Formats: sequence, structure tokens, C-alpha cells
Amino acid sequence: MTNESSRPPVVPSFSAVIPAGGSGTRLWPLSRPERPKFLHDLRGTGASLLQDTVARLAPVADRTMIVTGVAHVEAVREQIPALSDADVVAEPSPRDSMAAIALAAAILESRHGVHVFGSFAADQVIARPGQFLRAIGVAIEAAESGAVATIGIEPLYAATGFGWILRGEPLLGIDGAFRAEAFVEKPDAETAQAYLDGGLHYWNAGMFVARTDVLLGHLARLQPSLYDGVRALAAAWDGSERASVLEETWPTLTKIAIDHAIAEPVAAEGGIAVVPSDCDWIDVGDFGVLASILEPDADGVIRLNRTAPARALEASGAMVVGGDRPVIIIGVDDVTVVDMPDALLVLGRASAQRVKDAAASLMDD
Amino acid sequence: MTNESSRPPVVPSFSAVIPAGGSGTRLWPLSRPERPKFLHDLRGTGASLLQDTVARLAPVADRTMIVTGVAHVEAVREQIPALSDADVVAEPSPRDSMAAIALAAAILESRHGVHVFGSFAADQVIARPGQFLRAIGVAIEAAESGAVATIGIEPLYAATGFGWILRGEPLLGIDGAFRAEAFVEKPDAETAQAYLDGGLHYWNAGMFVARTDVLLGHLARLQPSLYDGVRALAAAWDGSERASVLEETWPTLTKIAIDHAIAEPVAAEGGIAVVPSDCDWIDVGDFGVLASILEPDADGVIRLNRTAPARALEASGAMVVGGDRPVIIIGVDDVTVVDMPDALLVLGRASAQRVKDAAASLMDD
Repeated sequence: MTNESSRPPVVPSFSAVIPAGGSGTRLWPLSRPERPKFLHDLRGTGASLLQDTVARLAPVADRTMIVTGVAHVEAVREQIPALSDADVVAEPSPRDSMAAIALAAAILESRHGVHVFGSFAADQVIARPGQFLRAIGVAIEAAESGAVATIGIEPLYAATGFGWILRGEPLLGIDGAFRAEAFVEKPDAETAQAYLDGGLHYWNAGMFVARTDVLLGHLARLQPSLYDGVRALAAAWDGSERASVLEETWPTLTKIAIDHAIAEPVAAEGGIAVVPSDCDWIDVGDFGVLASILEPDADGVIRLNRTAPARALEASGAMVVGGDRPVIIIGVDDVTVVDMPDALLVLGRASAQRVKDAAASLMDD
Repeated sequence: MTNESSRPPVVPSFSAVIPAGGSGTRLWPLSRPERPKFLHDLRGTGASLLQDTVARLAPVADRTMIVTGVAHVEAVREQIPALSDADVVAEPSPRDSMAAIALAAAILESRHGVHVFGSFAADQVIARPGQFLRAIGVAIEAAESGAVATIGIEPLYAATGFGWILRGEPLLGIDGAFRAEAFVEKPDAETAQAYLDGGLHYWNAGMFVARTDVLLGHLARLQPSLYDGVRALAAAWDGSERASVLEETWPTLTKIAIDHAIAEPVAAEGGIAVVPSDCDWIDVGDFGVLASILEPDADGVIRLNRTAPARALEASGAMVVGGDRPVIIIGVDDVTVVDMPDALLVLGRASAQRVKDAAASLMDD
């Protein structure tokens, strides 16, 4: 970002913050608490979702900071060797997205002064990265002007599994940005259809772009104790007191999502901008979605993370994930087989959402 | 068998011959050429089909002889430790059932004199062994009187996958035995239904009981060169020349099934007896049949040869064979999962007969 800011205290720089959390139990047994979704190559390209996310942001980011659980720091460093120690923020335990993002913003502001940063989940797929970068450019402009900007994904269907954002008036002087009137949680089917038909709603992909001082200012007003904790942590972060302040402060941080802490109340005040984008954003939430983004091989079988043969006889739409043994599927349509060393899943596509329950039931044993 | 024979040259003794061959490719990847069906425990009792077959015949057999391929001699000896070296006849290569059975008959006659023997495949399940033994008793009686006797299985449905036997007049003086009018190869559905409705046809389970001299006499008339070869082999079998005679003679033996060599022509001459039996004979020909003979566990899943958990969610009639990993099946009904270290099969029950083709196609790679 070389955009010259007209506001002297704002450093012309852009930081990409990537909260890398979640266990992805709907992709069990591929995704596991000890190796969650963002560490996996779900597109068969050789790159993990995290690596994709970092690479996608590289053209606009002056630096990247990843916030992840202590258990995943090593894997993150392995996958992104260009990161320095300082670029990885290790959370002792999950305290939801507001704490993770605000801590990153506060540390970045301490190190680099007030500047614009954006937060982007580590486990999403974006099929049209060029469109995405164009939207980020607009969002950065909106953020520089003092808004908290979000990307509104052009909806492809009446999704009940996502939150939606209602667009308001165009933002003066910033082409492609609108005031965000409201954030709506997962709607019912009828409401979702009305949103889709109305043309004024977008999917909420949980991406936020803001000046560090603007975001932290909202937090100071709306969640003052969380703000105080995050500022205390950031002040100690690069010094000798980090461990002791972490131990004391981290467990006291309010557990709240950024949507509830900032997006919803600030939208009501008129402080959120939405930048619509048709970047083909995909939340790979379950094996049904995964199958839809992958191409079958010459034998008509979708293969992911495996080189051994997979055959399908009288079986259309088969997907085989992992494993190094030959697999044959006969007489079962739209089945997903996930062949991991320590667990095997055989899943009818229509039941993709049930995987979470099944994994939980097996873990209880 | 302590039945006193009225014919002086016939020794009152009964030998059980068990040809143990076939690769069972419709049960791939459980059954393999290197470890065929008869070596597997398909009932979850801890005993293989071969062990079951030997045990089932033990009450009537004075001795048991197993004829198998050289590759399986060691496994057969391991499973049936009571067998002596002499009780296992190793075939250098498969020459079909007539050669195997006639060689066993000739060796047994050389060792023990003329007596009654029976031949029983190693890979069949019989749910009512008491009924089976009663039929064998009647067959032995018929055999002593000079007939080649076979067991006719009371049909349960209009099977097109088995041969059938047409019953004629009762055999005089032997209660429960009939003249066999004809052996019919696998019929079409309409014919099979007519057989079932008519009540005069039985399934052919390939079991034959005869005096050694009677069977070998038919062979001498009908397949003289095969007869000569078998007699030469038997004469040398227990001496120092076995290996050289085997090498010279075995590859020359006519490859023919006992049904075509003896059962069909001798039935036409009136020399075959059929003993009907409702012994619940089951040919475990594919995974569909296998599922039908096993009981589901408390979770509603049929498990065979595995102790690890197997769960089914929105999935009725699931069967899991082998494997030591947890398996979860979600949203697929009537699916069979065969989890072997070197191959994985996921099979819809209705396509059980396609397994053979699939296994073949994979082997071609």
C-alpha cells in the first residue's frame, strides 16, 4: 500500500492479520483439533488454506501477523517459514475473535504506529483473488477515512448458514463502498431468499479492515475492560514481562466475537462500510462444499491428498480423501470416503452436516 | 461309520475329502488369491470355513483329506493341526474338480482299500449340521449300494446362480434317497421359478458320496486318460517317485468339473442318487450373502473380524469387515466397508456381484 494518507498520524502501511483458529470438526477425520482445517491442503494444489491466505494478501500487505493457539505455532512456522517469531502471536487459550484481532491491532500499533490493518480468517477459499484484492483496496480507502470496512460477498444462493450484511447508501467519495446498515445473523430460509431477491444483502465473510486507532477506539467505548486488557498485553508484548502479563491478563479477557463486540453496534451508529465483491469466496464448511470445489479425475473420482488408485463402479460423484491404499467404490452415489491412518469416514453427501455429531460421539468412547 | 457292509471287498470306513480351492474374488479385498475364502472366518466365530467344514464332517469321517494348491498347504496345516502330512494333497496347479477328487479317491483306495468317501467344498456354510449329517448317513447307504450319491439342497428361492438337480423315483430300500434324473446348469429366472414351484428340483451344492471303486470305474469309462493319470499318480504317491510322476503326469490331466465328467452322464444312465436335505446350506458367494448371515451389534452395525468401534448415523444395514480403526458411516444405507491393510472397498449391497469385476480392474493397474 503506497497510498499517501492525508492524515499525518496515520502511517501509510497495511498489516494483514490472520486469526488461525477453529477445529473444523465438520471435516473430521481430515481436520482434527490437533491439526485443524487451516493447516490442510483442501484444494489439492499442495498449499494449505493458511498458505493460500498469506499468499493472497501478499500483494497488498506490508507485513503479516498470524494469531493462533500455542499448539499450532510450530506448524504455522513450518508452513510459513518467512514469518519471524514476532509475526506469530500465540494464544494460551481461545478467547474468541475480538480478543485475537484487538491484541494483534494493539501490538501492530505499538510497533509501527497508527496504520490500517485487516483481519482475514485462515481457512477460507477465494477463487478470484484479483477481485478480492480490488475490494481490499477499496476497503483500505474506506478505513483510512475512519470507517471499519468489511467485505460483503455477492450472494450466490439463499444461504442459511452465513450471516448477512445489509447495504445502505454509497459512501461519499469512495467508489465501491456503502454504509453497512446492519449485520444479520444466520437467517431462516424464507428470510435468506428475501435477502437474495432484494439485492441489498451480502454474505458476511468476517473480514474487517480498519485503522488500528479506530478499531481500538470503538473497543475502548464498547468493551472497555477487554480494551484495557489488550492494551496492557500489547505494552508488555515485546518486553521481558510478556509471559507474566499474559498469565495474569489473558484469562480475564472477555470472550466475544468481533461481530457482536463491534460490527453490530458500530453499524447501528453508521460507522461500518461494506465493500461488495464477487470474489467467489468459499467457506469450505463440510465435505459437500469440498466436493463442489474439486474436479474429478479421468475415472470420475474426486481425489484429494492421495496418489493411490481410486475407482468407482456404478457410483457417481465419489470423493476419496487421503490414504495410500487402492480404494474401490461400487454402487453408492455421492459418497465421500476419508481414509486417515486412525479413522475412516464413509459419508453420504446429503449428510455432510452430521459429521460433527458423529466425530463427537466417537470421541466420547 | 461303523455300518457293516454286505459286500466283502468294501471296507466299512468313510473318508471325507475336502477340495479347498477357488480364490473368491467376489469377496475381495477380504478374500485374495493368496488367502482365499476357505481360510477366512466369515461367521465371526473364530473358525474359518475350512475349519468349520472339517469339524462338521468329524462325527462321520474316519479320516479327512484336504486337496489344495501348493501355495495354501502351510495355511491349511496351520488351521487344521491334527492333519498329518499324508492327509494334505498339494496340487501343483489347478486342474478343476474331477482331477482333485479322483486323485484323492485313488490315493485313499490305495491306502485303505475300497471304501466310501465323500467330497465337500471347503468354503460353504451349513447352518443345520445335524440335518446335514442325517443326509450324509443316507448318502453313504446309497453309495454302499453302488450309486454315486449327492446331497440335494431344499431350495429357498428361485436361484439363478446355482445348478439344480431333478429328483426321480425313490431309491428302493434306502429311505430318503431318490434317483437323480438330471443335473441342470444355472437356469434363467423363469425356469428357476418353475423348478421352485414344481417341488421336484434341488440346489446342487457339489457334494458327492461314492465308493472309491464306483467313482473311479465311472471315470475309467468316461474319462479314460484322466483315469490313467490319476491311477499312476496314486500308485506313486506314497513312494519315492511322487515328485517325478507329478511333474510328468499332472500337467496332462484333463481339466473338467466332476459335474460334467460324471454327474451329468451318470445321471442319464440312472447311476446317481440324490438325498434331499434342508440343512440350510449357504454359499457365501458375495458380501450381500455374508451380510444376510451375520447379526448386527448393539449399534446396528454388522462387524466381522474387527474389534474397533464402528458407528452408523442415518445409515441402516451397515457392515464393516476388518480393520482396526474407528469407522463412521453416515447417511448411506446398506453399505459394506471392507477395510484391509492394502485395499479399501465401499460397496452398496445391491452391487455385491460387481466386486469381481472391480477387483480385476484394479489388479490390471
